[in-house]
Amino acid sequence: MEEQVVRKVVEEVLSRVQGQNRGEGKGGDVVAVENVVEHPGVTEFVGTAIGDTIGLVIANVDSMLHEKMGLDKRFRSIGILGGRTGAGPQIMAADEAVKATNTEIVAIELPRDTKGGAGHGSLIIFGAEEVSDARRAVEVALQELPRTFGDVYANEAGHLEFQYTARASYAIGKAFNAPVGKAFGLIVGAPAAIGVVCCDTAVKAAEVEIVGYASPAQGTSYTNEAILFISGDSGAVRQSLIAAREIGLKLLSALGGRPESVSGKPYI
Amino acid sequence: MEEQVVRKVVEEVLSRVQGQNRGEGKGGDVVAVENVVEHPGVTEFVGTAIGDTIGLVIANVDSMLHEKMGLDKRFRSIGILGGRTGAGPQIMAADEAVKATNTEIVAIELPRDTKGGAGHGSLIIFGAEEVSDARRAVEVALQELPRTFGDVYANEAGHLEFQYTARASYAIGKAFNAPVGKAFGLIVGAPAAIGVVCCDTAVKAAEVEIVGYASPAQGTSYTNEAILFISGDSGAVRQSLIAAREIGLKLLSALGGRPESVSGKPYI
Amino acid sequence: MEEQVVRKVVEEVLSRVQGQNRGEGKGGDVVAVENVVEHPGVTEFVGTAIGDTIGLVIANVDSMLHEKMGLDKRFRSIGILGGRTGAGPQIMAADEAVKATNTEIVAIELPRDTKGGAGHGSLIIFGAEEVSDARRAVEVALQELPRTFGDVYANEAGHLEFQYTARASYAIGKAFNAPVGKAFGLIVGAPAAIGVVCCDTAVKAAEVEIVGYASPAQGTSYTNEAILFISGDSGAVRQSLIAAREIGLKLLSALGGRPESVSGKPYI
Repeated sequence: MEEQVVRKVVEEVLSRVQGQNRGEGKGGDVVAVENVVEHPGVTEFVGTAIGDTIGLVIANVDSMLHEKMGLDKRFRSIGILGGRTGAGPQIMAADEAVKATNTEIVAIELPRDTKGGAGHGSLIIFGAEEVSDARRAVEVALQELPRTFGDVYANEAGHLEFQYTARASYAIGKAFNAPVGKAFGLIVGAPAAIGVVCCDTAVKAAEVEIVGYASPAQGTSYTNEAILFISGDSGAVRQSLIAAREIGLKLLSALGGRPESVSGKPYI
Repeated sequence: MEEQVVRKVVEEVLSRVQGQNRGEGKGGDVVAVENVVEHPGVTEFVGTAIGDTIGLVIANVDSMLHEKMGLDKRFRSIGILGGRTGAGPQIMAADEAVKATNTEIVAIELPRDTKGGAGHGSLIIFGAEEVSDARRAVEVALQELPRTFGDVYANEAGHLEFQYTARASYAIGKAFNAPVGKAFGLIVGAPAAIGVVCCDTAVKAAEVEIVGYASPAQGTSYTNEAILFISGDSGAVRQSLIAAREIGLKLLSALGGRPESVSGKPYI
Repeated sequence: MEEQVVRKVVEEVLSRVQGQNRGEGKGGDVVAVENVVEHPGVTEFVGTAIGDTIGLVIANVDSMLHEKMGLDKRFRSIGILGGRTGAGPQIMAADEAVKATNTEIVAIELPRDTKGGAGHGSLIIFGAEEVSDARRAVEVALQELPRTFGDVYANEAGHLEFQYTARASYAIGKAFNAPVGKAFGLIVGAPAAIGVVCCDTAVKAAEVEIVGYASPAQGTSYTNEAILFISGDSGAVRQSLIAAREIGLKLLSALGGRPESVSGKPYI
């Protein structure tokens, strides 16, 4: 009987301890817990999503602050999308939001974050003439996030990210200097050593154009990532991404457990 | 009986595991454990405080190093205050120290730290002609830290910070470019999205002057924070801070548990 | 009997929880788990080592990517060494690798990483005309890492690092601007406050030349470190390092537990 008690207790305790660790975001590299939205009773609040992301609006930004923030004067109202974990997922989500609403992207800033992981967090600001437009943009972006976190894979040693759109819009244009209206792909590998091989594999897999390359000392906020931005024919971009994902998952597995999709729903 | 054993064991183990986690600084965003001071038997050692902060002195800095560090030649002796977690609390504490002693602030450098959290750590150097003055400044600053951590609030998703002084002195002037001798307030919100709303709320709540604004890509070391520095009438500054704190606590609660004062003693 | 069960269960659970924490890199400041190498079946893969370090090769870098990465055109083949934790250990290991092989160092980039700790990660690229040379360089570097992590000491509050070579080669020259062919020493202390005292102690302990000094705001990627690069007579450099290590271990102990060698094998 003693043995049974021991086993039972060990299991219960471990499950509770693991639950805590998960809840507190202490575990792996990219921790992207989707929070139960408890409305804080504040008019600025829009919602929350995976990646410790929060969506907010300000109907009428204070004019002094407006100036200090360096925002375009045309927009009284702003929508704010920001998270501790993830830059690519939030930028891709914001790109869908600007397609769907009467807003513009006025700022994209990338902190070095991910809660002890190897990557970025994000702060994205939408400008709008009407607060209802700003709110709608933030809502659309929050809804897109479970999808755009689908091809983010993480284990305890690092992460990989792949993003695809058939038609890049203005968030992607502003953040990555990519041509608007064309198919776009994003490849991220962390630690950066793995990212370099993913980038090389991607460009060898299909005829794509390199829009940009970023690494710890250039184009990132000192993240431990190598990043490639690609553009071109839709089929070719997808083929590049799939090849990069295949090798990335194998290499990151050599440093830890099998990397898992952060939202559980890959889309590429 | 089995049930009782199970419950008892589960409780004991959880309490010990949580104790470990707390002790090792793995838990939330701003972890600021006050260490039991065990004197290391080194003349340079002054003390430790909350935020993994250590206070040190060098009576006579090596002249070659002095030059490489870019320190003002007038000061042979330096006091050193630095921590893993927190920049605002240490700068506010240093401000009280320069008021109380015959020292000057010769360097304030802000690493991207907080042990996996969203903010800064700190390295502050006091210059003095006599080592006793440098030591006194460090002692005063260490004593101030439990107070200046009082309006730092953290949960597993981020943190908020509010600081107030009726009369800013030279540490605040150097770090934040704020007018010396006037009331000063500091507002920090992380993730930065929450900080933006706190800043806007602050400036709408009372007639204050914006001394500066900082965000992940400008004025921070890539932290996930939006930060406002305000100056003005003492009552107005306090009113701004209180309004920002109220909305910040509500918004950060939407991403996690109720944010708690890091030192347990709010002062504003 | 109940007491025995309780004790037994508590011990087992704690050992399993601690094992998890260790494995997941949640514990202290510098977490440098040596991974069991599971070959991912990819030709680019060379091996893994302490510090979540991975070694890779690309036989023939895509020419477009080559250009975007800003690599020297002479080298078709590259070796890649990168880790989440550690810059000094990987640079010292790469220095041995360039001594032993027909390769050059074409890039050293230092992310702000260490998985929530106070320091850097690393991305080092070797250039070679033949892929076999690139692979050999990466192999040599991976083999050196357990040694070069020997005088990295960490506890939950920070870390210290000391490196020594009797004859610096081109990796050290490129990374630290140190004279090639001479004895070289590296001193790192985190939090930076402790590092400042280590640096001062080092230069007072022996007649050495300061090659450089780095701190959170200058020469680092915003790490919470003060760093000194020294050169000179071999005996003097060692004497400086030993003095700095002695005071560093005492001071870091004041903020936490006794700092332990990350690989368990100090070499200085």
